[in-house]
Amino acid sequence: MTQSEQVRGYYRAILTEEGTTMSACNRIDRCPSWPSLMRKGHEDLRKVLNSERVASRIIPVARGLSYSYAAMDVDNETLDLLADSANRLDLIGQYRALASGALMNIGENRMVLHHLLRGEPAGHVVRDGRNFRDFYEGERKRFSAFAERVRNGEILGSSGKRFERVVQIGIGGSDLGPRALYLALEQWARERGLLGLRASFISNVDPDDANGVLATIDPESTLFILVSKSGTTQETLANEALVKARLTSVKGLDPAGHLIAVTSETSPLARNPGYLDSFYIDDFIGGRYSATSAVGGVLLSLCIGPDAFRAILDGAAEADMRALEPAPRNNASLMDALIGIFQRNVLGRPSTGILPYSQALSRFPAHLQQLDMESNGKRVDRDGEDVPLSTGPVLFGEPGTNGQHSFYQLLHQGTDPIPLQFIGFKKNQTSFDPEFEGSSSRRKLNANLAAQIVAFALGKDDTAPNKRFPGGRPNSLIVGEELDPYALGALLAHYENKVMFQGFCWNINSFDQEGVQLGKVLTRKVLEDGGPVDPVLKAYATLLGAV
Amino acid sequence: MTQSEQVRGYYRAILTEEGTTMSACNRIDRCPSWPSLMRKGHEDLRKVLNSERVASRIIPVARGLSYSYAAMDVDNETLDLLADSANRLDLIGQYRALASGALMNIGENRMVLHHLLRGEPAGHVVRDGRNFRDFYEGERKRFSAFAERVRNGEILGSSGKRFERVVQIGIGGSDLGPRALYLALEQWARERGLLGLRASFISNVDPDDANGVLATIDPESTLFILVSKSGTTQETLANEALVKARLTSVKGLDPAGHLIAVTSETSPLARNPGYLDSFYIDDFIGGRYSATSAVGGVLLSLCIGPDAFRAILDGAAEADMRALEPAPRNNASLMDALIGIFQRNVLGRPSTGILPYSQALSRFPAHLQQLDMESNGKRVDRDGEDVPLSTGPVLFGEPGTNGQHSFYQLLHQGTDPIPLQFIGFKKNQTSFDPEFEGSSSRRKLNANLAAQIVAFALGKDDTAPNKRFPGGRPNSLIVGEELDPYALGALLAHYENKVMFQGFCWNINSFDQEGVQLGKVLTRKVLEDGGPVDPVLKAYATLLGAV
Repeated sequence: MTQSEQVRGYYRAILTEEGTTMSACNRIDRCPSWPSLMRKGHEDLRKVLNSERVASRIIPVARGLSYSYAAMDVDNETLDLLADSANRLDLIGQYRALASGALMNIGENRMVLHHLLRGEPAGHVVRDGRNFRDFYEGERKRFSAFAERVRNGEILGSSGKRFERVVQIGIGGSDLGPRALYLALEQWARERGLLGLRASFISNVDPDDANGVLATIDPESTLFILVSKSGTTQETLANEALVKARLTSVKGLDPAGHLIAVTSETSPLARNPGYLDSFYIDDFIGGRYSATSAVGGVLLSLCIGPDAFRAILDGAAEADMRALEPAPRNNASLMDALIGIFQRNVLGRPSTGILPYSQALSRFPAHLQQLDMESNGKRVDRDGEDVPLSTGPVLFGEPGTNGQHSFYQLLHQGTDPIPLQFIGFKKNQTSFDPEFEGSSSRRKLNANLAAQIVAFALGKDDTAPNKRFPGGRPNSLIVGEELDPYALGALLAHYENKVMFQGFCWNINSFDQEGVQLGKVLTRKVLEDGGPVDPVLKAYATLLGAV
Repeated sequence: MTQSEQVRGYYRAILTEEGTTMSACNRIDRCPSWPSLMRKGHEDLRKVLNSERVASRIIPVARGLSYSYAAMDVDNETLDLLADSANRLDLIGQYRALASGALMNIGENRMVLHHLLRGEPAGHVVRDGRNFRDFYEGERKRFSAFAERVRNGEILGSSGKRFERVVQIGIGGSDLGPRALYLALEQWARERGLLGLRASFISNVDPDDANGVLATIDPESTLFILVSKSGTTQETLANEALVKARLTSVKGLDPAGHLIAVTSETSPLARNPGYLDSFYIDDFIGGRYSATSAVGGVLLSLCIGPDAFRAILDGAAEADMRALEPAPRNNASLMDALIGIFQRNVLGRPSTGILPYSQALSRFPAHLQQLDMESNGKRVDRDGEDVPLSTGPVLFGEPGTNGQHSFYQLLHQGTDPIPLQFIGFKKNQTSFDPEFEGSSSRRKLNANLAAQIVAFALGKDDTAPNKRFPGGRPNSLIVGEELDPYALGALLAHYENKVMFQGFCWNINSFDQEGVQLGKVLTRKVLEDGGPVDPVLKAYATLLGAV
């Protein structure tokens, strides 16, 4: 029995109970509609984009947030073929299986339970006497109470000062998601009087990172969160050591009064007297899927408050529920996933731009870069076979309007069309917005966004060749009322579910990351006494002064 | 006479005087070596990478900085073919022509003089009685003196407070380059007692950007730099209006005592009593090439001091001089450019990762993204013909080791090889670096970098398919002693010159950006009274609440 069959065994058992139809293919290129899909080209947006299409091609992500795909160059026949594949691949069944506790992280033989952090889209998951929803909710309640006490000044630093800043020490998923979410809501919380502790982040093992952060904070009023699921992450432990050395030798503070841990219950950091408190996740929450766990939750509860963090979870839970809808035309993350597959595999477009028209989302593309590229940057499928298709794209992006004055030139007039996804909101987070030359900055921002969508899709001819815009450049839009915690949670879950569905289409395991291992092994060789034996490794280590 | 012939006319005249050989082709696909190049495949790095190659394939960029291309999968025959093309395209002659004042920005009929900001690689440029080197140096001396007076407390805010913070208000090139350079040297300057004013940046027309910055600064001790060459940039003027409204109505401050301008002499901002002082650039400094002009120089002189800013220029000047060397094997930016062309056009690799192992370079990839993608994201060549080759790649990147825990999974085990460029330094900027588990953080950082280079190039087999690393993934390395101002200037100039050489290979104009225009036109239509007439634009503007 192959690994894929094992996985399919799990969800078949579940599906059979529920009477769902079996899937008829396990990788999209094996589905009956694939040859027809491969014959499809892109639609000419300049001919088909009209206001009726804008009105009809829109799907709710969650309350106050929608996905518009009117300006994607896929025709209805293509969408039907994709929907047929989705059905035969049983993408919704696989999602239900995953959320029900199937061992969908096959290489590591683990469940994938990040949906349980915010709801139970496919019912209770109980294993070895543990109800996982209860476990995650229990931790959330524990850190909510802790955060309230810190915010109220009931827990103080070792020299008696109130905590005014929190520094998250973590890397990868312990950094990118929490950082993106914090920045997304910092002004929102400040404007509403909810901003408690302000956050900084130490991630890189480069000591200039930690020293740079430490140079601008007051350690006496700072709480540090050490975040490492395994409790063995090299960068994070080295940064902890550096921070502790500063606290003790330079500032004379007791680190145990300034440090808390977010880790797994089996890690060396758990229930360790070196920390003021510890909060837990487990092996079923992947790093890049951990923003809605204690990994993001402790920090966010300290900064924007436990209620706002819970609103993030509620928004994510609604998006998770809507992702169960079988028809792609009613399921935003499924439709986004399928159109992405068509762009990548049929139209051969190797990268995707994520362009939020919201400065608060400045680091959201960096989080999505990890989420997507680490999940779906895989060469072998769940059966151990080389995938004959290109998998995950390169993902990049910066906020608009900033990007308009930077790399948009290539997007408009470069040689290769790059699919784009815009994100926009009708309202500001902050209220000070005087009119200038007849319009507010908000109106200017969204006028620019509407203009870009149309410029990419429709282009413009000109007598001067260098002033011609070819148009026909596909883009979609996620549009919301306001970037509040609920919308942010829904946005986050939208992408998590999109990436999951794409992984199912390629029959890859989106939940492991074996590609990080070789570097770890070779790093240890460089750091060994006497340095590396391998001559090439030695040559580079020498060039870099690392031996 | 075509535009290209006009340009060639300029530099031919110059070249003929100097007795240089005429070029024999004007676009790389027209060079005699092109058919041979197109037949070349990539080299198998797993077979050819050895320590001798590491020792031999390295070229100085400037004092203390080198470019290593041992792990790029191009063989010596390919390099010879590329060198032949470079010679026949007269890339060095074109560079000399550009630096001599030829109208290389042909669409806009302008000179391209950013090299003159830091030296005169091809002699004096004098036009209409102005010696440009003297003009730029004159401005530098003026803003150096201004910065010294501010740093010394001789110029104070309108309420008598010393300036402790500077906020740059600008977008695109007025933001990305200066921000990247400031972040690159903030810790360096602090550690050496040179950090004067601390910097913040307002760029986005999204009011949450300006309001977020204003919420965390003390306006009374803040100097604002308004940066807009034309003096008409919508975002920048809107942000200026917002900032002024806060200073006057909320804080009761006189904006004229807190604002300076960096602009062109013909702009409405020049010699304007609304500013404490103004410093000038001109139309021959493109936004993305303006970091070494007053656009970056005023801010950096205030923050890290005029001497450190001058050291940036000196490093850039050395790199500019070395870029005149005709043999690619002795010219780092030329070699980097040619290998990039081979990756893009012969091997068909559409994106490039820039991976600095230095937290200080956290925003340097965002600057390079503009520099490269805005310069070379072009579809038509200098003769107005469609370029039959792919031009500029998508460029993305984040600092290592952070990226290792994020998108490196795709780089190692994704389906498509992506050329990478690492940047590393032997020393820290900051000195606090205690050992942990037998090594300093610096040694860990560079051990990781050496390990990644080797892991990408050589890979590793495994019995488990998902643990296999295919290897053969090309990467180069820019390695320096220390990220100081001199090295940073050289690094910046390296990329500017690389992008220039690639533009010459494709016969495109790397110095205009017509791709930004259509969006501006459509934005104005949305903001007009009554909103846009075009139904699609109206539909999107309505969806976004912009009408």
